Amino acid sequence: MVQLASMAMVEEVATKIKPDSNNIEAGFRPSIAISVGEIAGIGPELALRCAADPVIRARCEPILFGPISVLRRVARELPKDRRNEIDIVKFVEDHAPDWVDVGKVQIDSVRPGMFSRETGQASYDAVVQAVDAAISGKVDAIVTGPIQKEAWHAAGITFPGHTELLAARTGTEDFRMMLSAPEISCALVTIHIPLADVAKSLNVEAIVRTIQLAAEALRYRATGDVRVTVCGLNPHAGENGLFSYGEERDIIEPAIAAASAKGIRVTGPVPPDTAFTPRMRAMTDVYVCMYHDQGLIPLKAIAFDDGVNVTLGLPIIRTSVDHGTALDIAWKGIASHSSMIAAINMAIEMSKRRLSDSA
Amino acid sequence: MVQLASMAMVEEVATKIKPDSNNIEAGFRPSIAISVGEIAGIGPELALRCAADPVIRARCEPILFGPISVLRRVARELPKDRRNEIDIVKFVEDHAPDWVDVGKVQIDSVRPGMFSRETGQASYDAVVQAVDAAISGKVDAIVTGPIQKEAWHAAGITFPGHTELLAARTGTEDFRMMLSAPEISCALVTIHIPLADVAKSLNVEAIVRTIQLAAEALRYRATGDVRVTVCGLNPHAGENGLFSYGEERDIIEPAIAAASAKGIRVTGPVPPDTAFTPRMRAMTDVYVCMYHDQGLIPLKAIAFDDGVNVTLGLPIIRTSVDHGTALDIAWKGIASHSSMIAAINMAIEMSKRRLSDSA
Repeated sequence: MVQLASMAMVEEVATKIKPDSNNIEAGFRPSIAISVGEIAGIGPELALRCAADPVIRARCEPILFGPISVLRRVARELPKDRRNEIDIVKFVEDHAPDWVDVGKVQIDSVRPGMFSRETGQASYDAVVQAVDAAISGKVDAIVTGPIQKEAWHAAGITFPGHTELLAARTGTEDFRMMLSAPEISCALVTIHIPLADVAKSLNVEAIVRTIQLAAEALRYRATGDVRVTVCGLNPHAGENGLFSYGEERDIIEPAIAAASAKGIRVTGPVPPDTAFTPRMRAMTDVYVCMYHDQGLIPLKAIAFDDGVNVTLGLPIIRTSVDHGTALDIAWKGIASHSSMIAAINMAIEMSKRRLSDSA
Repeated sequence: MVQLASMAMVEEVATKIKPDSNNIEAGFRPSIAISVGEIAGIGPELALRCAADPVIRARCEPILFGPISVLRRVARELPKDRRNEIDIVKFVEDHAPDWVDVGKVQIDSVRPGMFSRETGQASYDAVVQAVDAAISGKVDAIVTGPIQKEAWHAAGITFPGHTELLAARTGTEDFRMMLSAPEISCALVTIHIPLADVAKSLNVEAIVRTIQLAAEALRYRATGDVRVTVCGLNPHAGENGLFSYGEERDIIEPAIAAASAKGIRVTGPVPPDTAFTPRMRAMTDVYVCMYHDQGLIPLKAIAFDDGVNVTLGLPIIRTSVDHGTALDIAWKGIASHSSMIAAINMAIEMSKRRLSDSA
C-alpha cells in the first residue's frame, strides 16, 4: 500500500521486459509528456492512473502537464487503486515536483463534469507547454488527454482541436490523422470535411504522402516491410469505372504506383467493403483510407475504444486517446484508462524507433 | 449411407424442432426455390449440400432450379458428405423429379471454373424460372446462388445483376438492398453509385421508405418493436453542421421524425464511426445506412462471409448468398455452404412471418 511496494513492482517489471539483445533501444526509457486534458473530465484521473502504473513507469518517465492542484484533489477523490496497490495521494506528493504545474484555476470553483472558460484555458495551456517541451527536446513525445472543444471555445481559443494547434505550433501544413489499435491501423487522406467534398478533395500527392507517412509510422511494429493496403473510394472500388468518376484509375492507382516506385510495399485500390475482413487484416499492417468513416467505422467496430489517435507528419511524436471527456463519470475512478495506456505505449515505441533511426 | 438413413434423420430433426405451441407457422414447411447460380462456379455444389442437409429439409422443401445434368455431374465429382452421411449421387436421383430442370447446356462442354455464354444463359434461365415460380405462388420464396456477371454479359443479358432482374420481372421500381447476419443487419438507402453522388441522391422519402422496409424485414427476428438505428452521412454526423451541407438536419432528421410518427422505433442520426461498436449493436436490430460501404464495411468486418443479401420492397421473398462464384475451387467440395444455409433459413423465417401476417 505504500510507495515502496510500488517501486519494487516497477523494478521487477523492468527486469522482466528488458530485452536480452544489445540493440540500441533496450535501455532507453523515454520521457513522455502527458497533458491532462479537460480538467473537469476524466483526463486527470486517467493521467494519474497511467503515471502510477508500474509497467508504464518501467518503460518510460511519465511527466504530467496540468494544474497540480487539480491532480491533488482528483487523487483524494479517487477510490484506492487496488490493482496497483498504490496510495495515489502519496504518489502525487512524491512525483509532483517532477511534473509541470501549468493552467491556473481557482481549485475551489472546479467541479467534476462542469467545464468552463477557466477549465478550457487550463487544458489549453497544458497542451501548449507539453508541445513546446517536445519541440525543444525536453521530452521525447507527448500524449494528450481528451479536451472539451466547447471549453476551448468559451476561453476564446480558435483552434477546433488538438491537431490544428499542434500543426500551427510546429509550423506543419501537411499532416495526417491515423487511428491505431493492435488489430487494425487506419491513416486518413481526408478528415473533417463533408462526405460530398471527399471525392473532389483527393489528389495523387495527398495519397502518396499518406501512404509514406503510414508506412513510416508502423515501422516500429512490423517485422519486415510495412504492408500498406489502400482502399478505393467507390463501391467495389468503382467496378471498372461503372460506379465511379474514375477516381480509382486517375488518382488512387497512380498514387499507389508512385509509392511503390519509392520502395513501399503497397497494394490496392481494394474494394472498401471487403478490405477489413479478417483475411485482409492478416495481410495488412496499415490501411490508407480516403475518408474519415471509411477508416473509423471498421476501426471502432473492431477495436472499440482502444484506438490510439496519432498525428503523422509532425516534427514531434504525438499520440492521443481516442475518446472524449466523459463528463458524466469524471473524478469517480470508474473510467477505463486502457486507451491512454495504449497511447503511451505507442509513443514509447515510436520514440525508440526514432532513437534507433538517428543512431 | 442410403436414403433411408437420411430420411430418418430428417424426421428426427423435424420432431425436435417442431414447436409445442399451436401458432400458425408451427406446421408450415415452406417451399424454397434455389437457383443454382453460375454452373461453372460453386453454386451447384452449395445448392446440393443445402438441399441434402437434414435440418434444412426438416424446415422447408428445397426445390433446385438449374440443369439437372450439371447437378448429376457435380454430385458424382463431390467427395462424400461425411457429416450428413448422405449418398449425394443417390440423393440427386431420388429428388431430381421434384426439381425444375432449366438451362440447356452441352454437359460435356462444361468445365468447372470456365464460364461461358452457355453457362451464363443457363444460370439466367434458372433465375427467371425461379422468380416466376415465386410470382405465381408455386414457391414461397427464392434463394439465389452466385452468378458470374461476365457470363451474363457474354450471353447478351443486359441486367447487371440479380437485383435489377428481380425488379424488372416483378415490376418493382422502389427496392432496397439489405445485408443481414446474426450480429448485424444493414439496409442501404443508396447502393451502386459513385461516392461523389451519394449526398445529392438522398431525400426524405427514400430514407423513410428504407426505414419502413428495414423495420418490416426484421420483424421475424425481433422480440418486441424492431429497433432501427439511422446513420448520419458526414463525419460525426456533421458535428452540428460544421462538417456537412446540412444533410443531417434537412434530410435525415425529418425522415427519422416521419418514420417515428408512423410508430417505428427509430433513433439517429448517429455518428457513423461509433454506430457499430458492440454497445450500439446491442441496442440495434437493423441499421439504415446512407451508402453502400457505410453498411457493408462494418457488416463484412464483423460477420465476414456469413451475410445474407435480401432484396426489400419486392412482392416476393428473395434472399441470396453474399459471396461470389469462387471459380478457382468450383466442384471440389471445399466451398463452405454456410452463407447459403443462412440465406435459406432467412427465407424460411420471412415466409413464416408473411403467412402469419396474412392469417
